[in-house]
Amino acid sequence: MNPTPPASRTPPFDVLVREVGPRDGLQSIARTMPTEAKHRWITALAASGLRTIEAGSFVSPKLLPQMADAAAIVRQALTIPGLAVAALAPNLRGARDAFAAGAPELVLTVSASNEHSLANVRMTTEQAVAEAKKICEWRGALPADQRPFVGVALSTSFGCSLSGPVSEDRVVALAVQLAAGGADAVHLADTVGYANPVQVKRLTARVKRELGGKLGAGHFHNTRGQGLANAVAALEAGVTALDSSLGGLGGCPYAPGATGNIVTEDLVFLLESMGLRTGIDLEKLIAARAIVAAALPGEPLYGHLADAGLPKGFVYAATARS
Amino acid sequence: MNPTPPASRTPPFDVLVREVGPRDGLQSIARTMPTEAKHRWITALAASGLRTIEAGSFVSPKLLPQMADAAAIVRQALTIPGLAVAALAPNLRGARDAFAAGAPELVLTVSASNEHSLANVRMTTEQAVAEAKKICEWRGALPADQRPFVGVALSTSFGCSLSGPVSEDRVVALAVQLAAGGADAVHLADTVGYANPVQVKRLTARVKRELGGKLGAGHFHNTRGQGLANAVAALEAGVTALDSSLGGLGGCPYAPGATGNIVTEDLVFLLESMGLRTGIDLEKLIAARAIVAAALPGEPLYGHLADAGLPKGFVYAATARS
Repeated sequence: MNPTPPASRTPPFDVLVREVGPRDGLQSIARTMPTEAKHRWITALAASGLRTIEAGSFVSPKLLPQMADAAAIVRQALTIPGLAVAALAPNLRGARDAFAAGAPELVLTVSASNEHSLANVRMTTEQAVAEAKKICEWRGALPADQRPFVGVALSTSFGCSLSGPVSEDRVVALAVQLAAGGADAVHLADTVGYANPVQVKRLTARVKRELGGKLGAGHFHNTRGQGLANAVAALEAGVTALDSSLGGLGGCPYAPGATGNIVTEDLVFLLESMGLRTGIDLEKLIAARAIVAAALPGEPLYGHLADAGLPKGFVYAATARS
Repeated sequence: MNPTPPASRTPPFDVLVREVGPRDGLQSIARTMPTEAKHRWITALAASGLRTIEAGSFVSPKLLPQMADAAAIVRQALTIPGLAVAALAPNLRGARDAFAAGAPELVLTVSASNEHSLANVRMTTEQAVAEAKKICEWRGALPADQRPFVGVALSTSFGCSLSGPVSEDRVVALAVQLAAGGADAVHLADTVGYANPVQVKRLTARVKRELGGKLGAGHFHNTRGQGLANAVAALEAGVTALDSSLGGLGGCPYAPGATGNIVTEDLVFLLESMGLRTGIDLEKLIAARAIVAAALPGEPLYGHLADAGLPKGFVYAATARS
């Protein structure tokens, strides 16, 4: 038996919002956030009620110098009570390093697009699937009480900026293969912001039918403004976890409006408005933007809620139900 | 028999995108766009394939000096072949003026929130409903071949920034009353950006059940980033027309990120990606932003598609089907 995700041990909520800013956000921008600021940021995010945070990526510091302090960040994050600390590992070596730092949840990546896989990790999709299986086998050999949860982000699931459309049959087959290979969850990722709600609903429902409880988070980028619409479509198809980034940190430095991940503040507001409990305090979440703004002056922060504020008479989903 | 909306006479499409930038966008900003620029803008919008454009508002120029040239704008817009020209009229006097200018489609407004109605047009909701009925009666007395199409935008249908939540029963009752009073269509408007997809789907479906073909456009603002998700929810509940504004022009000058209407470019991209034909050329639409940028230098233009560009391998819905 593999462990359940650490976050599921916390009090009831309807949607698990997985904050990926310290990993996906920071690795998508050129600048490096000081370790101390990262820790303050993660602490503030956790204090707002976020239960799972991707704290860093265990890649070569030559490739991503902004992630060189991943082990220190994970160790510090582990001192925050109740927080499930996730870390990205591109290969077995990264997985071992993340495990050594104590990360209870690993995120591996496999790109559904072979071209993207080659460009991104210099492996074919097939090789990346084999690497994921190897990591799951290594995990299975660990003492039962130490095994980290292993999710696989299936990137470019909804299209690829190098090769264009990606076959849905291929994505479903890869998801099945990864689950069979031992992954605890498969996250469907719209890495380049190509997805639309019809596609998201259709593909997510297909993967849900095949994987059941191993369907992981929906991971959407807001590159073309469609991120929250896709998030709602994923929920309708049975997803119960969504990735997002505070202030939409990330994106491509060469395209000013081409933001990265969907914005955590706007997502949480949307979910709570829809009557879905997140367990997150929006005002604390918005306050955490100041830490990022101070640590990365001039870096664009996205999102609307921080400017517009909460509606008059707004109530959290938990309050509305009680 | 009242006339069908002029736009429905054009070739088949799945969703009618109603461009409201020259009306809702311009009336929400402090500056005035020169008449000549407005005409060039409307011409470019129509050339991109937009079939219905709200060209202006027939309000007192003392209240909204940026709309003082509404009659000239409508007359010029009427020279564009195939374009359905709509104009907002806050009262019978405005409706007469819009009709005199030749507008084949009128948009009246009734606010579901009494507080908002009083603040906005100095009439109670009840008085505004009576005024709408009076306008429909005046319209009915015109020669049959000259009667303009009359839609009523039911504003603050999803919440009010003055009074908070708005009762859904009240919105449904008002919609029924307006349709019974002679309105050809009732548009449900999220004037202040409070709506969420669950609410939009529920309320829109209720109004659709009562009004059938008289359910008008969904009118959403992107104030809290949720605009496109709400647009998708409205489509799922049976709406076939959506209002939007090029570059999301509008919003509140006091809240930098608090954009106005949903962004036409992003909406059209989303619809076409979902397989819904709009008949609109996205590249021509994006090119039209330059006219606004030149005429209103420094005015923020929103939207993601213009920066990110179309996905590799993107096909329009009409092409995908053929």
